[in-house]
Amino acid sequence: MNKPQVPDFLKNIRIVLARPSHPGNIGSAARAMKTMGLTRLYLVEPKVFPSDEANALASGAVDVLERATVVSSLSEALADVTVACALTSRRRELTTPLSTPRETTPELVARARDGEQVALVFGNETFGLSIEEVEQCNRLVTIPGNPDYFSLNLAMAVQVMTYELFSHTGVGVEYLRADGEAATQGEVEGLCGHLEQAMEEIGYFRRRNSERLMRRMRTLFNRSGLLRDEIDILRGFFKQVQRAADGSLKRDED
Amino acid sequence: MNKPQVPDFLKNIRIVLARPSHPGNIGSAARAMKTMGLTRLYLVEPKVFPSDEANALASGAVDVLERATVVSSLSEALADVTVACALTSRRRELTTPLSTPRETTPELVARARDGEQVALVFGNETFGLSIEEVEQCNRLVTIPGNPDYFSLNLAMAVQVMTYELFSHTGVGVEYLRADGEAATQGEVEGLCGHLEQAMEEIGYFRRRNSERLMRRMRTLFNRSGLLRDEIDILRGFFKQVQRAADGSLKRDED
Repeated sequence: MNKPQVPDFLKNIRIVLARPSHPGNIGSAARAMKTMGLTRLYLVEPKVFPSDEANALASGAVDVLERATVVSSLSEALADVTVACALTSRRRELTTPLSTPRETTPELVARARDGEQVALVFGNETFGLSIEEVEQCNRLVTIPGNPDYFSLNLAMAVQVMTYELFSHTGVGVEYLRADGEAATQGEVEGLCGHLEQAMEEIGYFRRRNSERLMRRMRTLFNRSGLLRDEIDILRGFFKQVQRAADGSLKRDED
Repeated sequence: MNKPQVPDFLKNIRIVLARPSHPGNIGSAARAMKTMGLTRLYLVEPKVFPSDEANALASGAVDVLERATVVSSLSEALADVTVACALTSRRRELTTPLSTPRETTPELVARARDGEQVALVFGNETFGLSIEEVEQCNRLVTIPGNPDYFSLNLAMAVQVMTYELFSHTGVGVEYLRADGEAATQGEVEGLCGHLEQAMEEIGYFRRRNSERLMRRMRTLFNRSGLLRDEIDILRGFFKQVQRAADGSLKRDED
């Protein structure tokens, strides 16, 4: 299976960092974005930008930093956006709908696919988003987590949100799966018959309930998701067992 | 709504870092774990541990580092484990089933709930897991992402996996929602009737199709998820509009 493409519509989803204090977080956020196919970063009044520290932490995602848009207010970053999600972990007195990333993402993906501009808005590391910033957004999103220790780092929050977005694009991991032909039920049945024969010939069923034993073995093989070449290995082994049982193995060795 | 509890069975899920090189990643991983309610960290031959750098990056999760178990081989970390998931981003020649975090997590949560021990195994930052390490696991898990830039930082991968686990515990974000009583359909209908009356009285329907306009307004209000106190504000405003229309507002001001 060929390597899939990152869907084009992800360019309609931007990450907005409002007043970030630590250059390292900007770099880590850029790296997190790129791992999940996002490229458009907006920085509202970053304390330090550009910087060597951000570039170092961005690793192979320096291109995201180079193309980042620096603006002086959140409203500039959101002017052409239809859905702006404010990431928050505090209880807010606003009645803007609050949901989890998993609940919100399908709508965001659908709108981006339709060509609308979508923004995920993250606040300052220490203070989060101000009430004025949250009011410029039309969704509140909270990442679920430990109610007693909700201390998700800024770039970690970006990683979780972008992971959630990517998981709804339909681009999976199938292309990484090892090849392997699944065995048919007929082949599994053939394996079980062969095992039964070998057990019989080697005297394994003496004083044992062969029916019950074979039922257990059949259940095991059915559950295991056998591949064709695994069956070949096992049947080769059973053949050798049969030869050992009838003495022909010994004669070969003479 | 009260703050929910972190489910107790999460203690049956451990994070195993095999041969981590950078102390900072150990600290960030501990912080990521704790944000998602996990506490049991195993370190297989860490290059440096304990360290000030790990403690600094752990932030409020130093307790996870203090209780971490350092072992000299992966098999020690997995001895009492029934399901061990190897996190990998490379194509492997192994036929161990490969799945995404979202596909795998429900089984992990169910087993942990039943008291089985579950492990998520992460490899070295540069080399990932060796084939010998992967062979000690019975699941392969790959986080989906950009096929052209799959450079997820170690602690970021821990954050994504633990987020995915936590999202299947059923502990949501409801307790963070602002209070607010949803309006009934009868109240919404009352609002629409009041608006229609006010529009009529103020002469807004002259040369306009009132039926079509009201249908649009009714659709808007139905979609908006109105709260009772928002209806009160709007009806207060409509009442004032009616007073303006009949001239009583002007008389008040005299």
